[in-house]
Amino acid sequence: MIETPYLLYLGHSQDPADIKTSRGLAVFRPDICVGEYRHDDCPLTLELPRMDFAAARAAGAKTLVLGIANAGGKLGEPLIVDALAAMEAGFDIASGLHHRLNAEPRLVEAAARLGRKLHDVRDPRPDIPIGNGKKRAGKRLLTVGTDCSVGKMYTTLCLASALEKRGVPADFRATGQTGILVAGDGVPLDAVVADFISGAIEQVSPARDDGGWDLIEGQGSLYHPSFAGVSMGLLHGAQPDALVICHDPVRPHMRGLPHYPLPGLAQTIEANLNAARLTNEHVQVVGIALNTSAMPEDEAKALCARIEAEFALPTSDPYRFGVETILDRLLGTDVAAQSVTETA
Amino acid sequence: MIETPYLLYLGHSQDPADIKTSRGLAVFRPDICVGEYRHDDCPLTLELPRMDFAAARAAGAKTLVLGIANAGGKLGEPLIVDALAAMEAGFDIASGLHHRLNAEPRLVEAAARLGRKLHDVRDPRPDIPIGNGKKRAGKRLLTVGTDCSVGKMYTTLCLASALEKRGVPADFRATGQTGILVAGDGVPLDAVVADFISGAIEQVSPARDDGGWDLIEGQGSLYHPSFAGVSMGLLHGAQPDALVICHDPVRPHMRGLPHYPLPGLAQTIEANLNAARLTNEHVQVVGIALNTSAMPEDEAKALCARIEAEFALPTSDPYRFGVETILDRLLGTDVAAQSVTETA
Repeated sequence: MIETPYLLYLGHSQDPADIKTSRGLAVFRPDICVGEYRHDDCPLTLELPRMDFAAARAAGAKTLVLGIANAGGKLGEPLIVDALAAMEAGFDIASGLHHRLNAEPRLVEAAARLGRKLHDVRDPRPDIPIGNGKKRAGKRLLTVGTDCSVGKMYTTLCLASALEKRGVPADFRATGQTGILVAGDGVPLDAVVADFISGAIEQVSPARDDGGWDLIEGQGSLYHPSFAGVSMGLLHGAQPDALVICHDPVRPHMRGLPHYPLPGLAQTIEANLNAARLTNEHVQVVGIALNTSAMPEDEAKALCARIEAEFALPTSDPYRFGVETILDRLLGTDVAAQSVTETA
Repeated sequence: MIETPYLLYLGHSQDPADIKTSRGLAVFRPDICVGEYRHDDCPLTLELPRMDFAAARAAGAKTLVLGIANAGGKLGEPLIVDALAAMEAGFDIASGLHHRLNAEPRLVEAAARLGRKLHDVRDPRPDIPIGNGKKRAGKRLLTVGTDCSVGKMYTTLCLASALEKRGVPADFRATGQTGILVAGDGVPLDAVVADFISGAIEQVSPARDDGGWDLIEGQGSLYHPSFAGVSMGLLHGAQPDALVICHDPVRPHMRGLPHYPLPGLAQTIEANLNAARLTNEHVQVVGIALNTSAMPEDEAKALCARIEAEFALPTSDPYRFGVETILDRLLGTDVAAQSVTETA
């Protein structure tokens, strides 16, 4: 468990693409981000108060998040120096970089001496079991998609937050690095060894009996030739009662693969339902989430309405138009009712 | 590449289940097994000549295979002592145990001093790429199954050997530990990190232009809730032109999961073809391989005939009745012809 709130590290970054994880946190969880730390040569900002380590500690920040990417995922010297200074000031450190904090002797030494924690969010926990497919108590929703990077994390977070606003207990279950930093916990599924994919999801979304929902962050796509195995194991481990289909209507081809077209929504729905039924025969699709950020609002609304009519499923852009209609379907249909009966 | 021939290690093993990998090699590749090494307290034998290290070296053996399992996959003291003695006698060492040879300082020191190699076949190579799904030259056959452990490795080996006997170039591509020791090369797919499953298969079965076939060893099942992600990534990475469906007709339930029944053959065929079409739209099923070892021969023959008629696919128990009818279908149909056209 990573302690919050966070101070977000921008360091010496020059390219907006390099601060993706820090920006993700600022966008998705401003409530747990106290400020940003950047050097004078960094032209970027997340519109958070700029703070040094002492000021951020005084403002309550507990963990410095190295939410940046750089060539090769290395921990460069400036980053190490800054992390050491932050630890001296009282911070734990969290990082999603390929180069592990725990592989850098100076950081390990300082953490031991000062009693600080080093969180490498790319490292799966060591005790992940093989999946067993046994039905467990509780209700689960999983976001799936036509492709990678079509808004699954954001949709899942929106659903979790909107459920809580309705007084329904809801937990976001993170499966990617940014998601883990958002939630303070989760599993970096892309780094789990192949035989343990479904077991990792069974572990991260255990049985629950409070009538609430686990909202599980999806990854990849059953139609992505690089990552479909991850998506398949995730689907089986999640045993979802409900699926939300995420889609980017202007994506020209599968991410990173110009030679692969996107699958259609009907095909995506059918493939995900077929695969999901192996571990939960009652699975249903409860909505479609579109990322319409590239379209004017009237076009986006018209597209949502058209897809909603075509598939008879609540369809929305969660960021622009909210997820209330999807929640109405989720809570109003027999998906919820069936699961309550089964676990009662 | 692991050098052959092998000396098979039984050590102090008492339980036949503990020498599974050594037995697999003795059964599947007697041509590369010079003898067995066992202590006086070991009541087991693989019906190979019992040899000490000097005698086995004199008979040409190059690698000692620690083809045993024990509690926790540990390298116990007797095993380390024996491995050290074997290295002194001139052997490389290969092991599929969880506890790595390369994590034992005495073995590492001896290997460096003596110029020997330590092969941990559970360690994937470090340079596995992300799969790209690009069509590559050459023809590929993949064995898939209704469940784990239904004869996929054995069927694949039989097909490779029978193809070679017909003068068709054929390479067995190993994806499991025993298979890797059989072939001397391959990828331990269950130990590959999730994001790299399909890329690992693209790497282990690269483009070929000699008119021959890659015969790829399947793993798991699309219907096994623990491992379907592995099977899915394998299917996409293999881009198979041809599938052979492997099945154990007396298996009571999915391996290790009494709460999951086996899928039917029709369902298995449909799911595998649907998933495989993502990376090779011309994929065809060319046969069904049954493990009939638990049935009398007349019953086994009747069952093969019945399933062959039902699915209009050559059906055989490769061990009992050979794979010639499956090869006839493979080489005689448009599967082979289409692939030749495409890669020409």
